[in-house]
Amino acid sequence: MNVRHALITAANPRQRTLPLQTLIDRDGTPRAALEIILREADGTGIEEFVVVVCPGDEDAYAAACGDLRSRVRFAVQPEPRGYGDAVLQGQAAIGDHPFLHLVGDHLHLSDSDLSCARQLLDIAAAEKTPVSAVQPTRENQLTSFGAVGGKLLGGDRPLYEIEAVLEKPTPTVAEQELLVPGMRAGFYLCFFGLHVLDGEIFAILDEQRAAAPDAALGLSPALAALATRRRYLALNISGRRYDIGADYGLLNAQLALSLGGRDRDLVLTQIIELLAQNGR
Amino acid sequence: MNVRHALITAANPRQRTLPLQTLIDRDGTPRAALEIILREADGTGIEEFVVVVCPGDEDAYAAACGDLRSRVRFAVQPEPRGYGDAVLQGQAAIGDHPFLHLVGDHLHLSDSDLSCARQLLDIAAAEKTPVSAVQPTRENQLTSFGAVGGKLLGGDRPLYEIEAVLEKPTPTVAEQELLVPGMRAGFYLCFFGLHVLDGEIFAILDEQRAAAPDAALGLSPALAALATRRRYLALNISGRRYDIGADYGLLNAQLALSLGGRDRDLVLTQIIELLAQNGR
Repeated sequence: MNVRHALITAANPRQRTLPLQTLIDRDGTPRAALEIILREADGTGIEEFVVVVCPGDEDAYAAACGDLRSRVRFAVQPEPRGYGDAVLQGQAAIGDHPFLHLVGDHLHLSDSDLSCARQLLDIAAAEKTPVSAVQPTRENQLTSFGAVGGKLLGGDRPLYEIEAVLEKPTPTVAEQELLVPGMRAGFYLCFFGLHVLDGEIFAILDEQRAAAPDAALGLSPALAALATRRRYLALNISGRRYDIGADYGLLNAQLALSLGGRDRDLVLTQIIELLAQNGR
Repeated sequence: MNVRHALITAANPRQRTLPLQTLIDRDGTPRAALEIILREADGTGIEEFVVVVCPGDEDAYAAACGDLRSRVRFAVQPEPRGYGDAVLQGQAAIGDHPFLHLVGDHLHLSDSDLSCARQLLDIAAAEKTPVSAVQPTRENQLTSFGAVGGKLLGGDRPLYEIEAVLEKPTPTVAEQELLVPGMRAGFYLCFFGLHVLDGEIFAILDEQRAAAPDAALGLSPALAALATRRRYLALNISGRRYDIGADYGLLNAQLALSLGGRDRDLVLTQIIELLAQNGR
């Protein structure tokens, strides 16, 4: 798969201003969270970024794209009809091309020299099929994520063939339906917020919309359908996701950027000074 | 002085979006920095907040005021003609009334049970004269602040009568002109970004504007003139200022809020986990 498009969803009404928040990137440069997310996907062959936003948010988001502005195209989600519906707004711009999909409220920081996007795109290129990044996640966090079940493939990468996808399963359901041989007890493979997909996901979302026109459209049911139709993989990615919409998510993301970046010593010093001042 | 107005300047073009950034307050509630700044001044008898913004920023700022929205009035600074000019935009709303002035890009966190605004307003009420909050500041930070010279008054508060005001003096000039008896060598009393002023400052700014219509209008020269005309005090305040426009300023402010607040243990745990993950 030769992936030249990236689709970023940033139209969740509860989180619509999150990607506009300013963070200081690993290199010490202040950037909007959106620009940091776009840069994560840049340098991997992506030529065009399609960002799905709420109506009226285009200008503010355009200003938050930084140097990548000229390669960003906006798609508007007219109404908040679910995450799957937001993804579907990218169809007009992307068509049948394969695309990288990132969520606009997470930063994905790699543990290795290869960015998380690069790791996933390499798999998609080699395997020529859709692939989602996943991470082993404790069962008490299942309430926050979509999760997959499947079997480990042979080879030198932690790659799975997905057999089932469930959105925010209960631990009981996950235990019955999302078994992954070799996974530690109480852990499940949950989505990381990074996928390589193609036009088939739009087709499935269209079908699911037609089957229930008034319901909110999720992405996980569409990914579940995808897994029944063709080879769909999961890569246990080497990296960490930071949900900037979580409690203290921005703080956590900023600390992760800083402690892994150029100004680590400066920020460590600040933390220690603040601890000294705020001792109890 | 019975102070019912607060004037917040937030029209610095370089920093215009800073007060819109989301921080998590000491009580664990996410709030725009602007709302945290307004709340710092609330509960002290302030009835109306006048926020000076760039043209077109009113709506975004209104949304960032939270529950205090109904008590906020906006004044627009048509062009970026200096900090003093921004203050002057408050004249139409405030007139001759005394007012609390806070800068929109700093958080002021008290070291005591009394908020920084409360400490300063108590002095203004007792002394019936303008007063600015100051803090002893190392001479290598003089490049960032206005600084005052004067004499320590008797009494149980660290209160000074201001004799001179200089904006960002060099250490040499500060040593010659801003001596404060009793101050440690190499330290000067610098503005904290919190003042109680009255209509006279508007009159002085008007005069200084008339004398140099095309120059940027600073606030420090007007405060310097104020000190020559009437009794003008400085309170060495018990608190810390966090400049959210500085490098890592938002991070620092967030850490200060969190480490002094309800979620101290949670945030400390996050920091330690991140340090473990990002060890070198």
